[in-house]
Amino acid sequence: MPVEGCQIGEGTVIHHPELSNIYNAKIGKECRFGAFVDIGPCEIGDWCNIQARAFIPQGVILRNRVFVGPGVIFCNDKYPPSGGGWKGYPPTEVKNNASIGAGAIILPGLTIGICARIGAGSIVTKDVGDGEEWILNGLSRKSSSTESSSTDLKCQPWRKRWRPTSA
Amino acid sequence: MPVEGCQIGEGTVIHHPELSNIYNAKIGKECRFGAFVDIGPCEIGDWCNIQARAFIPQGVILRNRVFVGPGVIFCNDKYPPSGGGWKGYPPTEVKNNASIGAGAIILPGLTIGICARIGAGSIVTKDVGDGEEWILNGLSRKSSSTESSSTDLKCQPWRKRWRPTSA
Amino acid sequence: MPVEGCQIGEGTVIHHPELSNIYNAKIGKECRFGAFVDIGPCEIGDWCNIQARAFIPQGVILRNRVFVGPGVIFCNDKYPPSGGGWKGYPPTEVKNNASIGAGAIILPGLTIGICARIGAGSIVTKDVGDGEEWILNGLSRKSSSTESSSTDLKCQPWRKRWRPTSA
Repeated sequence: MPVEGCQIGEGTVIHHPELSNIYNAKIGKECRFGAFVDIGPCEIGDWCNIQARAFIPQGVILRNRVFVGPGVIFCNDKYPPSGGGWKGYPPTEVKNNASIGAGAIILPGLTIGICARIGAGSIVTKDVGDGEEWILNGLSRKSSSTESSSTDLKCQPWRKRWRPTSA
Repeated sequence: MPVEGCQIGEGTVIHHPELSNIYNAKIGKECRFGAFVDIGPCEIGDWCNIQARAFIPQGVILRNRVFVGPGVIFCNDKYPPSGGGWKGYPPTEVKNNASIGAGAIILPGLTIGICARIGAGSIVTKDVGDGEEWILNGLSRKSSSTESSSTDLKCQPWRKRWRPTSA
Repeated sequence: MPVEGCQIGEGTVIHHPELSNIYNAKIGKECRFGAFVDIGPCEIGDWCNIQARAFIPQGVILRNRVFVGPGVIFCNDKYPPSGGGWKGYPPTEVKNNASIGAGAIILPGLTIGICARIGAGSIVTKDVGDGEEWILNGLSRKSSSTESSSTDLKCQPWRKRWRPTSA
């Protein structure tokens, strides 16, 4: 039962369903999922690329064209108990075209802006603005040019490489 | 053979035995294990919550009601070789009601105190006292009030949420 | 299909092929692989020890007797897009007898020297020299004695513990 109870859009590829744990998620079209992902009842948009071993639990919303690197963990509880249920934290929202580097950890209830870039291994403890870059524990933060962050259609160098398999 | 040679207490739930690697461990009652966990010949108490992708090798002792977040890694060798056997480091002990945040890494041979809280993504290089909080690489450490750390029965806000399924 | 298209040397052990994703890799002799590893079209030498949950994609070269700790991630793209193909970054090379601690993240295109030691949880953003130690985000770096780093035959204390199962 490694993929169950999900609503999955057309063209989305789960590369290793037998090595995945995906349940009750709402997933858009033309996304890709690597091996060993653990995806709970979250909401994932279109054209997202979820790399191996990502952990995305209930309470997370990814918009469109989001990159989630290998081993990324989204938290959904600030003070997790050993027992008791999840209290329903405010959701974490990752906006269009944001890119989250390998092994980053995202604390609960945050917003990551359009085209934001999260460095590999970062621990994200605060909101990250549109076009902003967050490195490590936030000691280094810089914004992209206003122009580049002003729209999610032309905001990233790598955006140009994006070639959806359909319109 | 993803779960083998273990002694497992009553009421413990391994959510995805087919996606787990649990061997020769001694596990107490009413624990919960997420997907993709890798659990060696360690010792786990009662009512522990082990989230997805946790790595707990030989030489680790978890007492009761310990929370281990997703992707947490316990090390058991300070200078790991590419070859040769494990030398039998002093064990790492995590005491009652401690909570270890997502993706934290615990170096070998340490003690983590009663009700201690380890922040997500932390690298724990030293002992953490009862009721103490350890953030990132230990730059920020603070203790809870004496009262709150004086007993493991009333030490954590989240303790109140704990509802065992049996007495 | 969890192990496919690989060239694997004699005496190499994949402990849990059913819980692995290994494809198109060239792997030497007498290596060991833990559970939940995700190994792409990379090149791995002889006597390497790849612990559970390691992520080694295309563009990575490990020489001989390399230790890769649990949860280590090698990146191969500095600005990963949500879509589009991999651009063929310069490779990351890890030289003989290097040891990479648990949960470390290695950025793309780097060289890690002979007998180098990468601390657990480190984020490696620059080349690491022969015999050098890299801790956390590189704030602490120190070299071993010239003697100890001068050759890969006598460079590590743990080297002595290495006992290949055959000549």
